[in-house]
Amino acid sequence: MNKAETFQFHAIGYVENDIQEKSNSHKLKEINSRIVLDHDLVDGLDGLKPGNSILVVFVFHKTDDYEMHQHPRGDLSRPKRGVFTLRTPRRPNPIGITKVRLVDIDENVLTVHGLDAFHGTPVLDLKPA
Amino acid sequence: MNKAETFQFHAIGYVENDIQEKSNSHKLKEINSRIVLDHDLVDGLDGLKPGNSILVVFVFHKTDDYEMHQHPRGDLSRPKRGVFTLRTPRRPNPIGITKVRLVDIDENVLTVHGLDAFHGTPVLDLKPA
Repeated sequence: MNKAETFQFHAIGYVENDIQEKSNSHKLKEINSRIVLDHDLVDGLDGLKPGNSILVVFVFHKTDDYEMHQHPRGDLSRPKRGVFTLRTPRRPNPIGITKVRLVDIDENVLTVHGLDAFHGTPVLDLKPA
Repeated sequence: MNKAETFQFHAIGYVENDIQEKSNSHKLKEINSRIVLDHDLVDGLDGLKPGNSILVVFVFHKTDDYEMHQHPRGDLSRPKRGVFTLRTPRRPNPIGITKVRLVDIDENVLTVHGLDAFHGTPVLDLKPA
């Protein structure tokens, strides 16, 4: 392959919750987070209802490197595997995808359950799961 | 929100198949496609096996606009809905995500089944499904 072609995307919103550090990241799946969407995009939510499952596509904005082989979940007791067999944030393009449950919508603010993304995480897309 | 923050990603590989036009796109889910990965990233596949389900993250590289409300699957008989309730390529960030079945791996070439992406589609990531 020649020099890699690049693509630019923009944040459509940001994640809000109380978890900002990796030491607390195990709690993320168990709490509600808010996704605060750009006001200009609120019409794009028409038809979403509490209880829906959605895929949240986001940027792992706190990582800036990767290794080709990594321990699953950082567990040193497990043998390293290729990065594309893992959901690690440390990957060639730091894009995260998580299926969440929509708890509530209030205008441009979605309350979701199960989003493993730190406070301040930029969101790129929402899709039906 | 202030002026949207942007993020740059790069192609880690490209899709190869015989479908280049929308008129044939309904066949995509039924054929095998190849994902030709950058040679430098081949170690990242270690641990992948035929039969595995993987998520392919790609760029809808043939679309360059979107509407906030669209007919599901372009079917004019169905009422328009918000773009975030649809998997349409025409979305604020043209990122596609499809779950596929890995049929075969040969070095940096993955043969997959069920990938609804045209020939030449840039791939951004592969994850366990």
